[in-house]
Order: sequence, then C-alpha cells, then structure tokens
Amino acid sequence: MPRPNTSALRPMDVLKSAIERNVLVDVKGNRGYSGILEGYDIYMNLVIRNAGETIGGESKGVYERLLVRGDNVIFVSPSRGDEK
Amino acid sequence: MPRPNTSALRPMDVLKSAIERNVLVDVKGNRGYSGILEGYDIYMNLVIRNAGETIGGESKGVYERLLVRGDNVIFVSPSRGDEK
Amino acid sequence: MPRPNTSALRPMDVLKSAIERNVLVDVKGNRGYSGILEGYDIYMNLVIRNAGETIGGESKGVYERLLVRGDNVIFVSPSRGDEK
Amino acid sequence: MPRPNTSALRPMDVLKSAIERNVLVDVKGNRGYSGILEGYDIYMNLVIRNAGETIGGESKGVYERLLVRGDNVIFVSPSRGDEK
Amino acid sequence: MPRPNTSALRPMDVLKSAIERNVLVDVKGNRGYSGILEGYDIYMNLVIRNAGETIGGESKGVYERLLVRGDNVIFVSPSRGDEK
Amino acid sequence: MPRPNTSALRPMDVLKSAIERNVLVDVKGNRGYSGILEGYDIYMNLVIRNAGETIGGESKGVYERLLVRGDNVIFVSPSRGDEK
Amino acid sequence: MPRPNTSALRPMDVLKSAIERNVLVDVKGNRGYSGILEGYDIYMNLVIRNAGETIGGESKGVYERLLVRGDNVIFVSPSRGDEK
Repeated sequence: MPRPNTSALRPMDVLKSAIERNVLVDVKGNRGYSGILEGYDIYMNLVIRNAGETIGGESKGVYERLLVRGDNVIFVSPSRGDEK
Repeated sequence: MPRPNTSALRPMDVLKSAIERNVLVDVKGNRGYSGILEGYDIYMNLVIRNAGETIGGESKGVYERLLVRGDNVIFVSPSRGDEK
Repeated sequence: MPRPNTSALRPMDVLKSAIERNVLVDVKGNRGYSGILEGYDIYMNLVIRNAGETIGGESKGVYERLLVRGDNVIFVSPSRGDEK
Repeated sequence: MPRPNTSALRPMDVLKSAIERNVLVDVKGNRGYSGILEGYDIYMNLVIRNAGETIGGESKGVYERLLVRGDNVIFVSPSRGDEK
Repeated sequence: MPRPNTSALRPMDVLKSAIERNVLVDVKGNRGYSGILEGYDIYMNLVIRNAGETIGGESKGVYERLLVRGDNVIFVSPSRGDEK
Repeated sequence: MPRPNTSALRPMDVLKSAIERNVLVDVKGNRGYSGILEGYDIYMNLVIRNAGETIGGESKGVYERLLVRGDNVIFVSPSRGDEK
Repeated sequence: MPRPNTSALRPMDVLKSAIERNVLVDVKGNRGYSGILEGYDIYMNLVIRNAGETIGGESKGVYERLLVRGDNVIFVSPSRGDEK
C-alpha cells in the first residue's frame, strides 16, 4: 500500500499561517469570537487579541486578549480577504 | 489466532483519498459543512475549502477555509459522483 | 489466580469478520446507518459503503461511502442472515 | 504503608468469568441489552449474542450479535441464577 | 519547595479499605447503588455485590453482582457504622 | 524565550495545603460538598470527611467519608478563616 | 515545508504572564470567576485569589481562594488595563 506524497494541508499549519491574522472562532454553547490569532497549541487552545464576542449571534463586547480552551472550539476560520 | 490479510479500508485512507475532492461533513449540534477537503490529521481535525454551512438543514453561508476540530465530527462522506 | 485460556471473542475481531458484510450501526443522536462495512480502526472509526441513514427511525437517504467517527458509535451489529 | 494482599475482585475478571453466560448491560440513553457475553476488552467494549434490546424499559427486538462501544456502558450485571 | 510527608489518604486507598464493606455509590443519571464492594480498579470501575438500585430516589430492585463503569461514578461513600 | 522563575502556586499544592482543613467542593449537577479534605490525587479525585451535601442549594445530609471522582469537580475552595 | 520562526504566543505563556494579575475566567454552566491568578498547570487547572463568582451574570459572592478544574474552563481573559 504505497503512500504517495500528497499536498494535503495539515490542520495545525492552517493555524500557523493564521498567526497575526483575523480569525473567526466558533465555540460550543452558541458563542463566537473574532479577532487576531496570537497563538495556539496542539490542543487547539487559542490566543486571540481584540476578541469580539457574540453569544447567540448577539454582540457582547470585546476582550483585549482571550485564551480559549481548545476543547470548546467547533471551528476556526481565517477571515475572508485576509488569507495569506 | 492467525490474522489473514484483509482488504479492509483504513478510515484514515478514506480521508487521504478524499483530499482535493468534495466532502460532506456532519457535525454535532445539527450542523453540516460541504466543500473541498484540503487536509486532516489523526484526530480527524479537517480543513475544508469553500465550506458551505448548514444549521438545522438551513444554508448559512460559505467560508473560504474552515478548520473543524475533530471531536465535533459525526461523519465525513466523500460526495457522490466525486469518488476516486 | 490462574487465567484459563477462554474462547472469548475480541471486539475488534467482530469488526474484522464483518468486513464486506452488512452491518447496522447505531449512533448517538438517534441515528442509524446500515450498509457494507469497508473498514475500521481501533477507535471504532468505521467506513460504510451504501450507507442508508435513519434519523429517529425515519429513512433519510443513502451515502455512497461514510466515515463515521468512532466516539459517536453506540453499537455495531452484523446484520442477520449475513453472519460468517 | 504496607499493602496487604486483599482478595478484591478485579473488574475485568468479572467480565472474564461472565463469558458465555447471560449478562444484563445497562447503556446510556435509557437502553438495556441482555444476552450471552461473547467477548470484551479493556475499554469495556462488549460482544453480546442474542441480545434483546429494551429502550425506556420497552422490548425492541433481538440482535444476533452486538458490539457495544464501551463508553456507553453504565453497568454490566451477570444475570441471576447464572453465576459461576 | 520541600514536600513534607503528609498523612493524606490516597483516594484508591479509600476503595481498598472499603473492600468487603458496604458502600453507597452515586452515579450519573440520578442513580444510586448500595451493596458490598467486591473490587475496583484505577478507572474507578467498581464491582458491587447485592447491589440495591435506586433511580430518582426510588428503589428498583437488587442485583447479585454489578460491574459499574467508572466514568459514571460521582462519589463512593463507605456506609456509616461500617468504617474500618 | 527566557522563563523567569515565578512564584506561581501549583494547583496540586493548593490541595496539598488544604489537607485536614475545611473545603467547599462544587460538583456538576448542582451539587456541593463541604467537609475536611482527607486526600486527593492528580485526577482531582477527592476524599472528604464529614461531608455535608447540598443539591440545588438545599442541605441533604452528611456523609462520614466521601470519595468524589475528579471529573465531576468544578472547583475546590479552602473555606474562609481556615487558610494555612 | 520550511517552518519559519513565528512570534506566536504560546497559550501557556498567556497564563504565565497573567500570574498575580486580574483574570476573568468563563466556566461551563453559565459561570464566571474574576480575581487574581495565583497559579495554573498544563490541564488549565487554575488557582484564583479573591474570586468573585457570577452565575447567569448575577453576582454570588467572593471566594478567598478557588481551584477551578481545567476541563470546566471556556476561556481566560487577563482583565483590561491590567495587561503586562
């Protein structure tokens, strides 16, 4: 069973290339955070700067810096028009 | 207890052969994402390009790129008519 | 405490002997999938071909191929009349 | 802190001595399965033969063979009158 | 940072000293089991003999022997008047 | 990236210094236990002596000794006026 | 695939630099705790001093010291105007 070299993107590389760029993070419990990705680790713990919070789609304010625990994350999306 | 060589497909190989092809991803919380699979890892974290989102069966828009955390995934299906 | 050699069936062997046979897979969230088992791994990730989906007992259509993430699985049953 | 040799029963030994005997398995989501225990592993994945299913206490039919994923199990009870 | 020798009781020692004694086991889903602790392991899987079951505080009968999967356990209490 | 020596308190040291002191333990499912901490381990399994139980804020009685499984714990607070 | 040296912030470093500073901790079950971060570990278990508790946004009192089990944490935010 040969394993040809694919050009697949590793999920962690998506986070790596999103550093210092806008991301939208969807979180369990109907929450969303958008801001600048400052850091991450293999558990998908995320550090977000100027993180705007929405709960149930409603804007709830902005946090200067947020450390989101990875197990709450549903998805991370690098914002449109801000892709490397 | 001899272990005959079966032709079983390994789950990760299904993801591998779906790279750069359309997939439908069913996610906890009544969500679905369909788009091009760009990458994955052993935790079933998935990278999807041009990911159309549905919540409760309703279309919610498209993300240029999405990193879905694996523990939210219920199933991944390579779309019909797009199988290798 | 002697450990006599039992003839116990290993759970993974049940999956192994179900390869290329019909299985019924019961999944959290009131879902069921029936189709041909194409593959599995130790996490009980399953690959199913021609997978008919039921939600709440209602038929929802057929997927050509489905990779079900193991942590959603409640049980796997090799279909009757299709046992090795 | 001396550790006297106790005669404690190891949980896995209870499963071992229940092989080929009747068990009642209580499962999350208000389900129960009773049948002959054919196999198990350290994750408490269970193989049950002639497994009668109840949901909410109501009988739902019999499966020839069932592989129950261990993380759904609440308890396993070797049936009365069938103890080694 | 010196670590003085405390006389702290290790949780597993509580189970060890409860062997062949009455325990009350509180389980997720509003269940309780009381009976003689016959065995345990590091996952807090428990073997209970003559296990009286209560659901929602209501008595539901007695099991000759019960193997409770550890991840369902909320607490174990050696019954009063039965402490070593 | 130098790592200056901080005076940070390790979470396990908080438990260590609470041994034989009053603690309040908040537990999932709207429960609370207060009593003397007798022991703990790295999973945050806790042994509590003279453990008063509250459910939904209502007092439910006292257990001579309680082993709480760590994954149910929300927080542990050494009681006021009882700090080392 | 070269891995350029990024200036990404590691999540644990955010906790490290928040030691002895005000943090807001959002916890599952609609709870929040704000106080001085005294310690943490890699599981994101947190020690908080003078921890004001809110449940459902309502103030519930202050704990002298709180050890929050990491798996309950949604996010940690170093409070505004208190950043290093």
